[in-house]
Amino acid sequence: MTNSTPVISAFHTVPDFAKGRVRDLRIRWAYEELGIPYDTHLLDAMHPRGQDYVAWQPFDQVPALREGEIEMFESGAILLHIAEKHGGLLPREEQARCKAVSWLFAALNSVEPALMMVVMFALFHSDRPWSGDAVETIKPFARQRLKRLADALGNREWLAGEFSIADIAMVSVLNTDMVGLVDEQPTLSAYRERAFARPAYSRALESQLADFRQTVPLDDIPA
Amino acid sequence: MTNSTPVISAFHTVPDFAKGRVRDLRIRWAYEELGIPYDTHLLDAMHPRGQDYVAWQPFDQVPALREGEIEMFESGAILLHIAEKHGGLLPREEQARCKAVSWLFAALNSVEPALMMVVMFALFHSDRPWSGDAVETIKPFARQRLKRLADALGNREWLAGEFSIADIAMVSVLNTDMVGLVDEQPTLSAYRERAFARPAYSRALESQLADFRQTVPLDDIPA
Repeated sequence: MTNSTPVISAFHTVPDFAKGRVRDLRIRWAYEELGIPYDTHLLDAMHPRGQDYVAWQPFDQVPALREGEIEMFESGAILLHIAEKHGGLLPREEQARCKAVSWLFAALNSVEPALMMVVMFALFHSDRPWSGDAVETIKPFARQRLKRLADALGNREWLAGEFSIADIAMVSVLNTDMVGLVDEQPTLSAYRERAFARPAYSRALESQLADFRQTVPLDDIPA
Repeated sequence: MTNSTPVISAFHTVPDFAKGRVRDLRIRWAYEELGIPYDTHLLDAMHPRGQDYVAWQPFDQVPALREGEIEMFESGAILLHIAEKHGGLLPREEQARCKAVSWLFAALNSVEPALMMVVMFALFHSDRPWSGDAVETIKPFARQRLKRLADALGNREWLAGEFSIADIAMVSVLNTDMVGLVDEQPTLSAYRERAFARPAYSRALESQLADFRQTVPLDDIPA
């Protein structure tokens, strides 16, 4: 690997449910689509990473990217950087490109937060007596967002014409659903399967799984 | 107004708490910073907007943008488009620019969802007997994200050197906090006040407030 090989931060130890769902997968996927080799900087998910890493990723999360002289964080920002720098995974025509960027942000700001709320209560706060009621209370909001996404996608293959970083982000977000909301929308489960069938996705997933040295039970995750 | 005057979708009727917080404000703010005139396309927040609007904004939310031949949605995507098209509100130097874009996404994907969860339970589900407990359960996550943001900002004036779209997004996100979490971090309340002191922010706020014809009580908002 030369100095210009991009480096993605990722975890080497995660709980079972997180395998194939940690966000560095989004970045691996983009590089695999473009045929660009990358390296990983592996971190322990179970312990704080320290000030050096926080200077690179202020929320002490993954992924962060180092590419040449550039350091970045946030999966959405990194996807956009890769697409712009390497000239792929975004349509060239202006309206289609603007649409893809709109959908990239929609994945991360209109769909993921709605899904994340449900998953957080269902998964991380299931010990609370009101957890089930809370999940049912917020499900309609997530369900409505997914229905609107399904309506917008319709019978198109990808969100902005050709396959783009918007699809990488959106499908990765849909894959955080562990309560079956996505499967209520056949349009969306078919979309997810279509994306997962791409060889670049399989390579990215294998690459993430190969980096996990150890699995820990959910109960051991620090709050 | 000529055909090339950008058009932002916004609401003409909102509940009191939403005044100064509806997301079209972010876009008005950016145009005001750049001295670019804009027009608004006003919608009723209390009723579904219909298929024509959904074709423009798939989640039936505001803002959406029409500028020349381009149609976009998602406040983050629109901010980025404006900065790139008009050559302002983003640093020119590559690392600083990448940092600003990272922070733009961080505002919308790492900070806003954590705050939004708290606000949703505190505001929209306060009738549930477990609402208070739910708010206390998820507050630490939001508090931790805000603490990390405060640490990263430190004694700098803006997130990426000069004032940028990252600050517009982040300060707008901080302003959605209605439970006092931001005020626990003096670094962040000072940052917010610094941004609100900008003349362009005042003009944007006045422009949004001037478009509200009617205020409705919170109880009347359809779920």
